[in-house]
This record gives sequence, C-alpha cells and structure tokens, in this order.
Amino acid sequence: MALIVHKYGGTSMGSTERIGQVAKRVAKWARAGHQLVVVPSAMSGETNRLLGLAKALSPEIVTAELQRELDAVASTGEQVSASLLAIALQAEGLQAVAYSGWQVPIRTDSAFTKARIEEIDQTRVMADLAAGKVVVITGFQGVDAHGNVTTLGRGGSDTSAVAIAAAMKADECLIYTDVDGVYTTDPRIVEQARRLHTISFEEMLEMASLGSKVLQIRSVEFAGKYRVPLRVLSSFTPWDIDLATEAASGTLITFEEDEKMERAVVSGIAFNRDEAKISLLGVPDKPGIAFQILGPVADANIDVDVIIQNVSHDGKTDFSFTVHRNEYTRTLALLEATVLPKTGGAKLTGDARICKVSIVGIGMRSHVGVASRMFSTLSDEGINIQMITTSEIKTSVVIDEKYMELAVRALHRAFELEQAPLV
Amino acid sequence: MALIVHKYGGTSMGSTERIGQVAKRVAKWARAGHQLVVVPSAMSGETNRLLGLAKALSPEIVTAELQRELDAVASTGEQVSASLLAIALQAEGLQAVAYSGWQVPIRTDSAFTKARIEEIDQTRVMADLAAGKVVVITGFQGVDAHGNVTTLGRGGSDTSAVAIAAAMKADECLIYTDVDGVYTTDPRIVEQARRLHTISFEEMLEMASLGSKVLQIRSVEFAGKYRVPLRVLSSFTPWDIDLATEAASGTLITFEEDEKMERAVVSGIAFNRDEAKISLLGVPDKPGIAFQILGPVADANIDVDVIIQNVSHDGKTDFSFTVHRNEYTRTLALLEATVLPKTGGAKLTGDARICKVSIVGIGMRSHVGVASRMFSTLSDEGINIQMITTSEIKTSVVIDEKYMELAVRALHRAFELEQAPLV
Repeated sequence: MALIVHKYGGTSMGSTERIGQVAKRVAKWARAGHQLVVVPSAMSGETNRLLGLAKALSPEIVTAELQRELDAVASTGEQVSASLLAIALQAEGLQAVAYSGWQVPIRTDSAFTKARIEEIDQTRVMADLAAGKVVVITGFQGVDAHGNVTTLGRGGSDTSAVAIAAAMKADECLIYTDVDGVYTTDPRIVEQARRLHTISFEEMLEMASLGSKVLQIRSVEFAGKYRVPLRVLSSFTPWDIDLATEAASGTLITFEEDEKMERAVVSGIAFNRDEAKISLLGVPDKPGIAFQILGPVADANIDVDVIIQNVSHDGKTDFSFTVHRNEYTRTLALLEATVLPKTGGAKLTGDARICKVSIVGIGMRSHVGVASRMFSTLSDEGINIQMITTSEIKTSVVIDEKYMELAVRALHRAFELEQAPLV
Repeated sequence: MALIVHKYGGTSMGSTERIGQVAKRVAKWARAGHQLVVVPSAMSGETNRLLGLAKALSPEIVTAELQRELDAVASTGEQVSASLLAIALQAEGLQAVAYSGWQVPIRTDSAFTKARIEEIDQTRVMADLAAGKVVVITGFQGVDAHGNVTTLGRGGSDTSAVAIAAAMKADECLIYTDVDGVYTTDPRIVEQARRLHTISFEEMLEMASLGSKVLQIRSVEFAGKYRVPLRVLSSFTPWDIDLATEAASGTLITFEEDEKMERAVVSGIAFNRDEAKISLLGVPDKPGIAFQILGPVADANIDVDVIIQNVSHDGKTDFSFTVHRNEYTRTLALLEATVLPKTGGAKLTGDARICKVSIVGIGMRSHVGVASRMFSTLSDEGINIQMITTSEIKTSVVIDEKYMELAVRALHRAFELEQAPLV
C-alpha cells in the first residue's frame, strides 16, 4: 500500500463528465489498496472567467488590498472543482472529503497572487487517510498568518500537489495533464519532437523555468528539495487501462544520474515568449549597483529571470534583465521613479517583443562546443542574438520574438533530437 | 454617524456593471459619514449554476458527506461577489475588505444546506469599521465547529444580513432587492397589489413564511428577536438619489403597534406552491402519536410547515402535514420505512400538486368573521378547501395548485386590498 498524490489540470477537470472520469481513475487506484490525495485545478476557463470579472471592476490590480480580493475570487475555482470531485468520488462509492487550502491548513506568506507555501499541516489529512477516505485538496491556494486566502500564482496547483506530497511523505506524485509527458520541445512547433521517458531533475528545472509549461517551476523545485518522485502523464488515457501500465507511462523526473538512462548531450529545446527585457545603459560600475537596481524590483514582488551585466568600460556598465511581460510597464515605471535618479546619466530602455530560447541537457557538462553549435545554428538562419546566459546544463539566448519558431526548429534539428538516443 | 448594514440580492449583483452601481450607492452612504457593512448574495444565476454542477455528478445529495461538499461548492458564489464588491469599492476610492463566513467567523451548527447561525464574532469587523473601512461579508454561509463551510439554505443572505446587524448592534438593516417593498400580494398575480409603507413584524413573519418571498423567514425571526430595524427597498432606484429619500423608501418592518400606521383588517395575501401534503389516515389516536410521526421527519432535517390533526372517531384519527415539495418523495419513503409499520393499519397518502393561500393581518385579532369571509370567497369561486389552519393573525388554506391565482385574486378583491387604508 502506497500513499499517492494525484494532480489533475484544468482540462482534465473541464466538465462534470470529465470530473466523473477522474473519479473513476482515482477509484481504480484507491481500490488497488493505495491511499490517495488528489489535488485538482479549477475547471478549465474558470480562473480566467473569475479574473475577468475582477478586472472589469478594476483594470489595474496593483495594491495588496486589491490583490487580496483577487485571490479570494480566484481561489473559488479550485474550491468548486475539489468539492465536485469529492461528490463524484462518493458517487463512485468511495469515502471522500474535500478541503480548501485554509482548512488543511496550507500556510503561505502574504504575497497575494504569488504566495509561497511555508508549512502544511498534515494532521487532518493523515487522519482521513487512516479512516479510509480519499482526500481532495484544492490546488493553487493557501492561507496566510492573518487568515487571508492567498493564491500561488498561475499553475500553482502543481506546486500544491508536490508540496502536499512532500509534507505527507508520499511515495509518488503523479501530475495528470493534457500532454503525455515531457518532450524534447513543443510538438506544436516541431513535429518531430519526441517524448522523454526520463528526465533529470536539473534538466526538468531548466525546461520548466524556461517555459516548457508542462510543470510549474516551483513544483519542480519542491520536488527536488524534498526528493518527491514526480511523474508527468496523460489524463486522456482511458481511466480503465491497466494500473501498472498507467503507473509506468509519461515522463519520470529522476534525481539520480543513471548510466542506463537515455542521455543525449542536449535533452530538449525550451522557449518562452512571456518575457520582456529591460536595460539600464551606462550605469556607474561600482559595488552594490546590481542590488541598487534589482532591490526595488524584488521589493515590488516582481520576478526577474535572466540577469546580465557585462564588463565595464570607462567606469560605466550596461545592466539588463528580463521580467514577465505583464510586469514590463510596471517595472519600467518603478525604475524610472526609484533607480534612474540615483544612477546619474544612465539610460533606461526596454523591449517587450522578445523571446528566450534555450538548449538544456545534463550532457552539456561533459561536452564542449555545445553552446557554439547553438550560436552557429542561429547564425546560419540569420537570427541576431540580443542576450546570452549560460549555466552548467543550459544555454539561453534572447532573440526577436518573430524568430522563435524558426530558432526552435533549427536547434531541434541541429541537436538531432528527433532521433531516439542510444541507451 | 450610524452603523448601517446593507444587503444586496443576486439581481442587484447580477453583473460587474451592477456591482459597480452597488459600490456607488454604498459609497454615497459611507461618504455621508455612516459605518457600512455590506452583505451581498451571489451573482444571479450563479448559485443555480453551481448546484447544477454538483447535481450532474450526484442527482441525490442526501448524505451529510455529500451535503458538506454541496455547501462548499455553493458558498463560492458569495465569496466571488463579496470580493468583487470590495474591489469595486476600492475602485471608488474607499477602503474596503471582504470576508467569507469562516473569516469573520460566523459560527453555525453542522446542518449542511440549512445551517443555523449560532454566534457571530464582531471583533474583526468592528476593528475594520473603526479603521474607516467598509466591510463586505458573504451572505448565505458560515463555518461549523469543525471548520466545515456551511450554507444557510436558499435566501440565507437575508438572514446573514440581519444576524450581522444584530451582532454589530447596527442602527438599521436595509435589504436592497428587486422589489420596492412588501406588497399586499404578488403584483404579477394581482395587478392592483399595493405597496405597504409599514408592516408589523408579526405580519411580515407570516407573509414571509407563507411564501411572499420578499425576505427569508429566518431573517424576520432574527430581526424580531433582536429588534433590528429592518427595511426592504429597491436596488433599482438610481444610486445617486437623495440619501434621505432613499432611507425613507420601501417598506419598514415595525415592532411597535402604532395607531397612526396604516392598519387594515387584512394586510396581505400570501401564497406558496412549493409545498406537498402528506397524510396518515386512520392512525391510533393515542398520546405521542404526533411525535411518533414527526420525530423521524425532524431527525431527517426535513422542515414541516402546516400540521393538522382533527378530532378522532373510533379511536382513530387522520394526521396531515406539509413539507417542501423537494422533500416529498424522501418524506414518503421515510414514513413508509419508519412510521407505517408501527401504526397498524394506517394508510399513507400524499399530494404534491397543492398550494397554500393565506390571509395575513394584525387586524384579524380584533375582527370577527375574517376567516369566514375568506371561505365564502373561495366557495363563490368553486374552489374546494383541502386543509385549514389558523393563527391569531393569519388563516391559511391548502387548495389544488391550479386554483392558486384565482384564489389570490378573489381574496385580494374581497378584502379590498387595492385601496389605500385610512390612516
């Protein structure tokens, strides 16, 4: 008997019919003797509908007071789907109970719309599991120390599921989604994209953070930190397929490097067109300048992705970073008000029409020339590279967004990702 | 400066545009120096949509476990509308905060789908009011001692508003609704129906319980118990009408009999077609028989309205009562299983195609012949009376539902309700 966490995305929960199918799938696992905790997203479209209502009343939701109410509104989508699933499970003859984040409770900080989980009390859930119940817990949300409902940001249900799996010391966390695993890149852009049977935690982290959109990055961080065995698999296989087959499907995110695992130099091509770049040109190159620029940005709870500072000349340097495109205007205004006056003569520029394309692979650690093959491939296609960052297992470039598909296809071909690797 | 509770129904909250209008109206009161607590219903249609989702998964929501989930689903409608209203109020430049029932908290018992308020903690709300905030509190819901969300039953937002007004010792509770007051009867049935400027608490109680549908009966009970000044008024007057005019509009529910108030023998005609009658014929007429029949019904949390037991003959009597039509099948099955075996030879019958029509008026106390005028009026129309019950200020008859409109119109005319009373 294992303790298993299932997470179902919005498409899987998209109608009462589909919720009924999810219930049958969960029942199959429960009847096989497993203890089940299920974390559903809101029914597809529901979160957008709710946010749309709020934005119709206040187009700019920027103050903490407004964001508090936005979270209260948005969190209801999961409250509905969780209890609907509990009803469907009861209709299947199982004992089931649904909890909202505040009922568990899932404690978070007070950063409304992008809260972070601090602690999960497993007492109530463990008691229910011991009593033979399937426990459904709302994804995407928690409660802060003042009893306010918070949400974890879009895609936060993955994080909820992994955090719950970690807190419960679950044997496995299965993320059921509308894709059947992690691919070498997005099959909508490269037809020859191939599903990976396994991917290392580090690669998955880079793939997720770089925009592969299969899993929310924080969920992968959590999984890595607590070594939660994590599997991405399809919720569209028939619910009554053999349990062992289902349990081995999808893509497993691994924590140990295993020589027998498929291992190419580059595992996948990730991309992200949700970012905007911002540069401060000609800032004084003195200690503390990076903090002086990014401190106010962090204080405003704006996530920064790529950060680049090149060597200086004439005592001045250029400082660039990327933020989510939704934060672009706000970040520019913030820098103009707080940072620009203190960086005598610096020039603030930005561009929201960019994208980031990355190659990711643990094999890069031990193979030279991988980055240069990336640059030559882009050069052959006539694509100008605006920014470059590298880490041990990925190389990212920022380019004009209009070249994104072209770049991804060329790189997928250049690194021969359409071919299954030697095992 | 007064502490005022406003309650807005689902139609008033029916769209973001309408919520914006509500915010402007509340702002007008707040800017006049009043402390405001606002209790909104769910956006119109939302509760039905949510219940429909649940019923698609489990047509019969009868167990406490299912009802618990149904309440969790249904309560989200008000959570959304409350926070949307707080957002709209902030957009109006006011400080505002929204609380769900569990956040106040509004403590209830655990009778899911029809919970009763036990206690309201006013600490948090009072602190917010003192800090200059408008406080929005979800109607219709609370939280039980185990941290489960409960709902008060349909129309429960009125009860929430009055209970909150009582707990906060509010100076007035204004129920904004889609009618502009309490009428002598439903104007959709009798064109000449007339708005009452005042109605006594007792009459209102009878009008509400008998189906006038302007206010939920429990809200009137609460108002009476705690002597909360209660006014029903229209939410469709322009939000920017003069505050004094608005404050004097609608129908005031009074607690003192005032000789100057308009006072007719009969104040209104109420009706209800949501009931079904059930009879046990030929039960032994012995002590305890009423409890033996209704005990299991009460235990199953089924509300009973009219109860009639007539004189016995041959040691046997007939026992009849009415329940909500939705509980008809369940009640019949319950009696068949639990009561019938113990009432040797009794016969169980029922009819769901009935309605109840009532005349209500404090003046009946001191006027003889009122009931008989009612019976003769119905007789003149050829309407057969199936059951009769009376109290000091109302007389009700159960008749075939197809005669309902005919009966209401005839009685409205017979008691001259279309004419304004002498003052």
